[in-house]
Amino acid sequence: MVATPKKDRPRDSVFEAGFRGKNVLITGGLGFIGSSLALRLVPMGAKVALLDAMIPDYGGNLFNIEPIKDDVTINFSNITDATSMNYLVRDMDYIFHCAGQVCHIMSLSNPFPDIEYNIKGVAVLMQACKNFNPSAKVIKTGTRGQYGPSVKLPVNEEAPTNPRGIYEVSNLAAEKIMKIYNDVHGVRTVLLRLTNIYGPRSQMKHSRFGVVNWFIRQALDNETIKVFGDGQILRDFLYIDDCVDALLETALCEKAEGEILNVGMDKAVCFLDLVKNIIEVTGSGRWEFSEFTPERKAQEPGDFYSDITKIKNLVGWEPRVTLREGLARTAEYYRQYRQWYWDPSSNG
Amino acid sequence: MVATPKKDRPRDSVFEAGFRGKNVLITGGLGFIGSSLALRLVPMGAKVALLDAMIPDYGGNLFNIEPIKDDVTINFSNITDATSMNYLVRDMDYIFHCAGQVCHIMSLSNPFPDIEYNIKGVAVLMQACKNFNPSAKVIKTGTRGQYGPSVKLPVNEEAPTNPRGIYEVSNLAAEKIMKIYNDVHGVRTVLLRLTNIYGPRSQMKHSRFGVVNWFIRQALDNETIKVFGDGQILRDFLYIDDCVDALLETALCEKAEGEILNVGMDKAVCFLDLVKNIIEVTGSGRWEFSEFTPERKAQEPGDFYSDITKIKNLVGWEPRVTLREGLARTAEYYRQYRQWYWDPSSNG
Repeated sequence: MVATPKKDRPRDSVFEAGFRGKNVLITGGLGFIGSSLALRLVPMGAKVALLDAMIPDYGGNLFNIEPIKDDVTINFSNITDATSMNYLVRDMDYIFHCAGQVCHIMSLSNPFPDIEYNIKGVAVLMQACKNFNPSAKVIKTGTRGQYGPSVKLPVNEEAPTNPRGIYEVSNLAAEKIMKIYNDVHGVRTVLLRLTNIYGPRSQMKHSRFGVVNWFIRQALDNETIKVFGDGQILRDFLYIDDCVDALLETALCEKAEGEILNVGMDKAVCFLDLVKNIIEVTGSGRWEFSEFTPERKAQEPGDFYSDITKIKNLVGWEPRVTLREGLARTAEYYRQYRQWYWDPSSNG
Repeated sequence: MVATPKKDRPRDSVFEAGFRGKNVLITGGLGFIGSSLALRLVPMGAKVALLDAMIPDYGGNLFNIEPIKDDVTINFSNITDATSMNYLVRDMDYIFHCAGQVCHIMSLSNPFPDIEYNIKGVAVLMQACKNFNPSAKVIKTGTRGQYGPSVKLPVNEEAPTNPRGIYEVSNLAAEKIMKIYNDVHGVRTVLLRLTNIYGPRSQMKHSRFGVVNWFIRQALDNETIKVFGDGQILRDFLYIDDCVDALLETALCEKAEGEILNVGMDKAVCFLDLVKNIIEVTGSGRWEFSEFTPERKAQEPGDFYSDITKIKNLVGWEPRVTLREGLARTAEYYRQYRQWYWDPSSNG
């Protein structure tokens, strides 16, 4: 496996003190963020259980946890299965809730998985905690899409929330449900709104979510990356290791309980520069401008980048991996393990 | 029946031009607001279909439509039944969506009916319209509870939305889902946030929702009404006929499409004054102060009253029935038809 060098994990000693011997449940545990979390928690001495429904086209991939497969327990079930959730939450100290439908495009043609997994799923989880383990702390990975189009930049946690897709609405509803369990029922929650995350272990089979990873796949396959419009739309892109740090750090931080916190990069990049960087880092692929399809144009929320002042001040977290470095690590991982993520002969 | 005097319906000629011969579906059509709407629409010459699931303890009551029972079609089914919804929405010009779980307290012990009926239900309805009748216009009766505690008074539509119950979250999510169908799929919606509505045809069997009506029942039964705390918390209370006017008027108003609009009274009243008025109007009952229970205290969102500037300016609607007049009409209705709403020998 590609091991992230130890020098890049300066917070591990603090984390180890917090998580050693703790029971940790990760929903969506075989997915991108869930498996990356597990890979950090196991060496710290946490007792990690993973829940994954392995829904086709979602992010679950057993290869993601190959290095720790004998050190975790895996439960194949859906978060909406109340009977098993009621059992699984018992004795957990921390629950990282990463399971869900995460595709904006699919949610617009079929809203029901979002309602079922993202909204009902969170209610099942929180009811399970309320009734069977009210002292658990639950950390949620929401999305910057909950804001919808930016009113001013960078976007802080007080901004209006007018999402443009059912996926995003379902995340906002789930966040508000968790907030009520925190405030009314006393089950502590941490409510994160993640910007675009990229890095090793994200699915690579299709382009419907995970745009940075998809561009990296195209570059590695020496294909032409399409840059829509003039490529000047701004985003912030956060490397997975920084995202995992944010999850671990907020989980241990009392001041983060009941709070909504942006998790993003404090540097905005336009799509054109992102793509140029990817092509330089991989040394393959090329790019061309492309017209927005009318559908894409209608749904494009415009510039977005996160204001991370709140999490910096409250928790002390900030990103450490530059875009260039993150892209390089991602490309290296998929170059080595491509066969576990996509069929090189396929077009996705 | 108690007929609302003709002089109190100055907008009917305009409404008649708009609704005569139109196909109108009302979900929750045997409930408080749904049946009141039907009673106005039928004499205008609208062809009215009512959908109701008749869930125990919700608002459905066949007696509500006694005067028009031969002039409407009734469909007993749940809004989450996609097959029947796909059929029922065809050819409808207007759909008033009043069905749902409406109890804050119940939502906190069991969040699943709210997710099922209020969120999934709205998605089923909107998918049905998108696929089988995209030219229908859908009007939603949301709740002022979507705001949560007031940041400033009166509360306008730009206020933050931090609801304190799953019922309220489910309404906010449903509103945002409908907004997406309006913006992305072109199914026109009108998104109303109603303040406390009272009047004839609200359920009277229990006190879990509809506080004004419950106080009226207690007064009619010559009981003691408990006023929590010092009774100084402010609310606005809107009479059902004004609410029905708002629904009809916004349905006909092109400028209201895609808009979120408060429907409230432009006068705030404290609970103590409300109760005193009820006792004077009914000529029976009495009141006493009572301590908040800790649970009630925790969930009490404090003062709330609606800023209705937006709907006044955009649509031209404003309330016409004073609190005193509305209370008198409500008391008169239930005095006459009490047996259809509660068993006088029971305590709810």
